Amino acid sequence: MSQTNINRLRPFAAARPAFLDGGDTPRAFLERCLEVIAARDGEVKAFVTLNTDQARTAADESAKRYAGNRPLSLVDGCPVAVKDIIDTADMATQMNSKVREGHRPKADASCVHALRRGGAIILGKTVTTEFACGVSGPTTNPYDAARTPGGSSSGSAASVGAGMAPIGLGTQTAGSVIRPASYNGTYAIKPSFGAINLGGVHPVCGTRDHLGVLGASLEDIWRAAHYISAIGGSAPGYAGIPGGAELPPARKPRRLALLRLGGWRETDEKSRAAFGELMGSLRAEGIELLEPERDTDLAALDAAALDVEAPARDIMCYEMRWPFQAYRDAGHELSKTITGYLDHAAEVTPAMYADALTRRDGLRARFAAYAGKTDAFVTLSSSGPAPLGHAFTGSRAFQTAWSVIGFPTISLPLLAVDGLPLGVQVMGFDGADDSLAAAARWIDEL
Amino acid sequence: MSQTNINRLRPFAAARPAFLDGGDTPRAFLERCLEVIAARDGEVKAFVTLNTDQARTAADESAKRYAGNRPLSLVDGCPVAVKDIIDTADMATQMNSKVREGHRPKADASCVHALRRGGAIILGKTVTTEFACGVSGPTTNPYDAARTPGGSSSGSAASVGAGMAPIGLGTQTAGSVIRPASYNGTYAIKPSFGAINLGGVHPVCGTRDHLGVLGASLEDIWRAAHYISAIGGSAPGYAGIPGGAELPPARKPRRLALLRLGGWRETDEKSRAAFGELMGSLRAEGIELLEPERDTDLAALDAAALDVEAPARDIMCYEMRWPFQAYRDAGHELSKTITGYLDHAAEVTPAMYADALTRRDGLRARFAAYAGKTDAFVTLSSSGPAPLGHAFTGSRAFQTAWSVIGFPTISLPLLAVDGLPLGVQVMGFDGADDSLAAAARWIDEL
Repeated sequence: MSQTNINRLRPFAAARPAFLDGGDTPRAFLERCLEVIAARDGEVKAFVTLNTDQARTAADESAKRYAGNRPLSLVDGCPVAVKDIIDTADMATQMNSKVREGHRPKADASCVHALRRGGAIILGKTVTTEFACGVSGPTTNPYDAARTPGGSSSGSAASVGAGMAPIGLGTQTAGSVIRPASYNGTYAIKPSFGAINLGGVHPVCGTRDHLGVLGASLEDIWRAAHYISAIGGSAPGYAGIPGGAELPPARKPRRLALLRLGGWRETDEKSRAAFGELMGSLRAEGIELLEPERDTDLAALDAAALDVEAPARDIMCYEMRWPFQAYRDAGHELSKTITGYLDHAAEVTPAMYADALTRRDGLRARFAAYAGKTDAFVTLSSSGPAPLGHAFTGSRAFQTAWSVIGFPTISLPLLAVDGLPLGVQVMGFDGADDSLAAAARWIDEL
Repeated sequence: MSQTNINRLRPFAAARPAFLDGGDTPRAFLERCLEVIAARDGEVKAFVTLNTDQARTAADESAKRYAGNRPLSLVDGCPVAVKDIIDTADMATQMNSKVREGHRPKADASCVHALRRGGAIILGKTVTTEFACGVSGPTTNPYDAARTPGGSSSGSAASVGAGMAPIGLGTQTAGSVIRPASYNGTYAIKPSFGAINLGGVHPVCGTRDHLGVLGASLEDIWRAAHYISAIGGSAPGYAGIPGGAELPPARKPRRLALLRLGGWRETDEKSRAAFGELMGSLRAEGIELLEPERDTDLAALDAAALDVEAPARDIMCYEMRWPFQAYRDAGHELSKTITGYLDHAAEVTPAMYADALTRRDGLRARFAAYAGKTDAFVTLSSSGPAPLGHAFTGSRAFQTAWSVIGFPTISLPLLAVDGLPLGVQVMGFDGADDSLAAAARWIDEL
């Protein structure tokens, strides 16, 4: 596993105490990130735009604050890689599409704005698939350049996985945060729907778009996500991420419910075995594991998640009409992937859309009703490690359900198959991101 | 009332049959609009940008479709004035702010895109107050240039009121469609919250921003609003405008509940008398009128609407943080009105925001519970006709309640005070825009 040694996660939370006692500085931390970028990004191609000069200036300002014992926040000085679907006022935001070539927004997206307020360093923009839903970009997997980094948050995941940045911002409409987190060996959180404001993030599907945070440790992703939610605010009408600025203490789950979803049938034997081994360790710790094979209620719930895949597609395509149909009618270039979605959208009537929403609500209610029966759900983050090739960013079969119902989920980089990382998903209940983090922390520390 | 004669509403629905039988053409209709613009817009200043050449081309294409008996929709050939807060790919969208000076969007807003698909003619962009929530623009009232046209949909309302266009698109977060409709003698509908997609409309307050349609007749506003909702879609997760493409048949209300809201105490005697006279006519027709002065339940409901004004302000300011705080931090110029909102926003905690949403939900539930007790609510559209001066666009005290709860409302230009128009609001229940239109039609035809 020589390649595994190349990729070392670079946690920020763990480095931060040394900024306060003078043993390290945000500038030195940044330089270590820049060294990895210089050494490896020629092959990994995680970044579209690097903001080196401004990042160094921001790091020096942060260093002064730490030296004066006055950091602005827990993310002060933290380098952040920002998916290029997210607006930045100081860098072009091009969304891997000719439609947005050279586009320079008037203002930072809400999440970037919040991070800057806390002193975080906006290091650069990372490769996204076209508008986070179309063709892939040039990024390769830092564990094996012949493999996909996953998508659509390809560059954010690869940069964090390669140790170029402790935090990457991503977005997830189907599986675009959790899947690349799995393939690149990073931590990631997709919070409850609406918990983070999406102002300045290009829309794909308004009822399902989430901002997610990929990072080098559970502490890192919690601190960044919570800060963004607290300062940038929630989506209109929604509550922010509950709990405090610090990662909640580990709490051992009493019971976990295992889901197979659509992904298990696609999963190779080695990945199944690695997951099975982890489940065995949990059981050995005295955690009760509900399994669909032994629990008819859970089996029915697991199957219900598959039943909403077609309505979920109707919802996404219907909501994609704006702005994508407007781009298309204006003669802008879009991939066949996106025009295919629009062609499907033309067949979705308002009545079909309303019906699809009702079915989604039904699934959400069924999962919500499980809150008394389990502390959290567990499953793989992807159906095996990153596949070979770059055009296809991998199956979403393990990620879509929690995007559709909008409940929070965390990916932990706990497994490895043939030297490639594979994530485990711990999935919680709507609005209970803090309880989920406490359970995930316990599993992570096991 | 010589000035009243200058301003003649120019209904499109009434003119359309002649396009089909050859007695008139969309091009001739457009030229009549352009004549009024040429004659009067030097004083009224409704338009920021006029798209005359493209409008003529589009009108000629529409004329061919009518000549071939193949119009694309009920709005084919209809000239539409578009508030400059709404993106247009073929015209700058400047939002009466230096932040957006010269800004040219990549795509039409969802509503504009829908109208173009139906063959409507995007005539030009109309003056808005700064970002639909800040300082006033140059527009004057077509009935008296010394008076405000109202805001924030100033130019759309003035252009329709002056007969420059049959349809104007506006937006309402507090009172920005219904108030200018009242001051300029136009019809207007603010549909149920979420019934029209807001893609490409600059946000102010995500839980309260509505697209509204101002027009020269009830038929015009219904057809345009319904078409936009059907083709452009609803907001993600919401249903569109119910009912058909054509204005529902008039339906006599059995009972109406009169609201005083915050506006009645501000209203002058003549306006009160004009409203009272109309209420008398309704009573004479056998409609039962509930009045807060004679119904303690209704009085309590009326008072409850006042109680949410402070939380409603918290909600708006909190949701305004993005993008306005990002503009501010980027050093862009904003009016004191907007920075004042942001200063207030800094004092609103997530807990206060959550509490404000809960109180709003409570008010919404109280009004919803009245569905069994009345067919609709009635009140004035503004506390008197347009006031003198231009800096202040008038009181919102009659309009905010229905924006806050998100139920549909229609303004009818039925009253006049000293030669100045004054609107009457007929207000319905969430998702029942069609029933509301049927009741409003009956009152309009009275």
